[in-house]
Amino acid sequence: MLFKGHGDKEIIEKVMQKSESKTKIKGLKRIEVSGRVARECIDIAYGFFTPLQGFVGREDVESICNKMTLSDGTLWSIPIILDINEEEVLKKSIKEGDTILLTYSGNPLATLEVEEIFRYDKMKIAEAVLGTTDEKHPGVRMMIGLENTFLGGKVTLVSHPKFQSPFDRFWYTPRRLREIIAEKGWRRVVAHQTRNVPHSGHEWLMKGAWFSANGELPVEKLETGILVNCIIGPKRTGDYIDEAIVLCHQQLNEHGYFRKDVHMVSFALWDMRYAGPKEAIFHAILRTNLGCTHQMFGRDHAGVGSYYDPYDAHRIFDQIPENKLNIKPVRVLEWWYCPVCGEVTYSGLCGHIEQRQNFSGTLIRSMLKDKVKPTRLIFRPEVYDKVMECADLYGFGSPFCTEKYLANRQPVFTLEAL
Amino acid sequence: MLFKGHGDKEIIEKVMQKSESKTKIKGLKRIEVSGRVARECIDIAYGFFTPLQGFVGREDVESICNKMTLSDGTLWSIPIILDINEEEVLKKSIKEGDTILLTYSGNPLATLEVEEIFRYDKMKIAEAVLGTTDEKHPGVRMMIGLENTFLGGKVTLVSHPKFQSPFDRFWYTPRRLREIIAEKGWRRVVAHQTRNVPHSGHEWLMKGAWFSANGELPVEKLETGILVNCIIGPKRTGDYIDEAIVLCHQQLNEHGYFRKDVHMVSFALWDMRYAGPKEAIFHAILRTNLGCTHQMFGRDHAGVGSYYDPYDAHRIFDQIPENKLNIKPVRVLEWWYCPVCGEVTYSGLCGHIEQRQNFSGTLIRSMLKDKVKPTRLIFRPEVYDKVMECADLYGFGSPFCTEKYLANRQPVFTLEAL
Repeated sequence: MLFKGHGDKEIIEKVMQKSESKTKIKGLKRIEVSGRVARECIDIAYGFFTPLQGFVGREDVESICNKMTLSDGTLWSIPIILDINEEEVLKKSIKEGDTILLTYSGNPLATLEVEEIFRYDKMKIAEAVLGTTDEKHPGVRMMIGLENTFLGGKVTLVSHPKFQSPFDRFWYTPRRLREIIAEKGWRRVVAHQTRNVPHSGHEWLMKGAWFSANGELPVEKLETGILVNCIIGPKRTGDYIDEAIVLCHQQLNEHGYFRKDVHMVSFALWDMRYAGPKEAIFHAILRTNLGCTHQMFGRDHAGVGSYYDPYDAHRIFDQIPENKLNIKPVRVLEWWYCPVCGEVTYSGLCGHIEQRQNFSGTLIRSMLKDKVKPTRLIFRPEVYDKVMECADLYGFGSPFCTEKYLANRQPVFTLEAL
Repeated sequence: MLFKGHGDKEIIEKVMQKSESKTKIKGLKRIEVSGRVARECIDIAYGFFTPLQGFVGREDVESICNKMTLSDGTLWSIPIILDINEEEVLKKSIKEGDTILLTYSGNPLATLEVEEIFRYDKMKIAEAVLGTTDEKHPGVRMMIGLENTFLGGKVTLVSHPKFQSPFDRFWYTPRRLREIIAEKGWRRVVAHQTRNVPHSGHEWLMKGAWFSANGELPVEKLETGILVNCIIGPKRTGDYIDEAIVLCHQQLNEHGYFRKDVHMVSFALWDMRYAGPKEAIFHAILRTNLGCTHQMFGRDHAGVGSYYDPYDAHRIFDQIPENKLNIKPVRVLEWWYCPVCGEVTYSGLCGHIEQRQNFSGTLIRSMLKDKVKPTRLIFRPEVYDKVMECADLYGFGSPFCTEKYLANRQPVFTLEAL
């Protein structure tokens, strides 16, 4: 089972040998793709999206929208589509059956075997996946921003992308992650998805979920692990900078807030759709492919604004037949600071409802902005120090994304020029 | 499944109607029994020991010792035996087939249908159940203290024992507990066995185990409960007084350290054998009968001295075929206070091994003796206040059993004189 991913399909890597890539891309029509498409090419080629081996065609889009499955019946909640301007298709006379070269930042990224050129109502996708066509929803805006023609077909990377520091040490392909999990002897692995620098509420979310995932397994050998899987993708101003996210999670590991034998930090490239429940399903599928047996889902997972009830992303799992998803959701309410208990406690266990102090992201952000070190019960000092270091090293003085950071940041990965 | 207990046998209560008891016991030969036998009569008659309906005979003792099952193959680890002096058997000419009356403190307790009068090597039982015949082991001393003849046969209580304050409000029969669990809508119930006044280490043992038992159940409805099941039985000087144990666990409930909808306090009458792993199995069986789906087992469960490895009681469950036990062990390492984390943390998650401060029972006891209130992170102030109140109300000034307490304490239950 080591390399079986979602839908029990084997994890397949499609990356060209260095020796063959130059020859193979010679003379191909070129298309420059967006950051999202580039990230998804990498995801597809390394098997993050198993069983997908490429961008989906019309039949799959239709099935995903109507039935939340691929056309072969495999559970799938978000269409992975390659959008292109119709004029470019005409100008370059791209046809079904062609193999074309996708470039990113001008460098060769991947070949695409064009199986299908099609159109599909983007608002129909938005309605089906996001449950809304409201332009205020960032996922809807993303759909609106897409070109109006889609290319479906298999993807093969031309070369391995080179991940830059500090991301390089957290980059694991699904195959590699599964090998590491086997080496560690983890029988259960619970994924923590994050786009945050962790405070103690996140830390306890993970700790509580570890117990849930471990269940009745014997504990002497510690056969359950926590896989922090940061989402690296497009940022908005005010978000934590990507470098701080991975490095601060690693601080918890390096400074003993987690034992090294039960915890590791990794990341996946993904452009959030903020699709709430349907994105929760997608994240679960993604983590199945990473070799996880469980994934934690907190309040308002992958939600935005008030488009979804805070626990919609919990409830959707009740509708999924057991044999459709080889990963179990660990559904978590809230961890908060309780002044009566004098510690971080869980809303499902602590009865001091009135005295509770919710972790306020806003408060913690404003403390970080003003360089006020919060108490160690709320925010670990080693994480504070690292977030400040990241601000200086990567963030042009700020731990949060600014226009300057977004315009000038170092790329997460680069491609060989060939 | 509401009233199915261990071995899938129905929970059967055997207590006489008030109207019939006087007639039924008239003229029966009487035997005065020990506190242990009295407690076990009550346990048997209410179904705490389902499927046992009485004290076991030779064939069951043999099977329990050799195979850890009853003679019908049901998992069973500790023989429940009624011991009697051979001279008394002869003097009262008790014979197989007789029904006799068991009295306790001079009052009618139960009838026994004498199916078998037999002898069995007590040291063979000690060796099989306790793994030792060392007289320093309290379970061995208990065996040595038994009379040399055993009576096997069914037990029926003559009347309902009357539990005294403060125990009365925590007394639930297995049937009643199962009804309450159903009323609460708990789909999973994890038992916490205790003979302690709880410090925060115990509290987190329960909280962590709640997550383990809840597993991947949705959490919005909170369908997992914690059943604190205090062991009430013979005490040794230095033990916490029984009154403080039940009332202090209840303090955690009443003062919000646990939500009332996920936690309740109860007790069971049981004379500890300190049999380590085999007693762990027995406790699991007992909690199956109470309607629990899980039971937590910490370090050195039911152990004493160094007769067992601290995790023997964890490992024995790996040898039990899955269909033999309808309850899952939640096996827990240690919760400790970590000064780096600034809170109570779990040894399986926290990496600050060198800085950890184990919960020291000795230290906490000495603080209580000197009336020093520990910090709320270690010992809840409401529990401290209650333990001191119990010392005054029940303990002749001490929260720990003294000779004076043992000689003069109020009985846990009384029997009608009839």
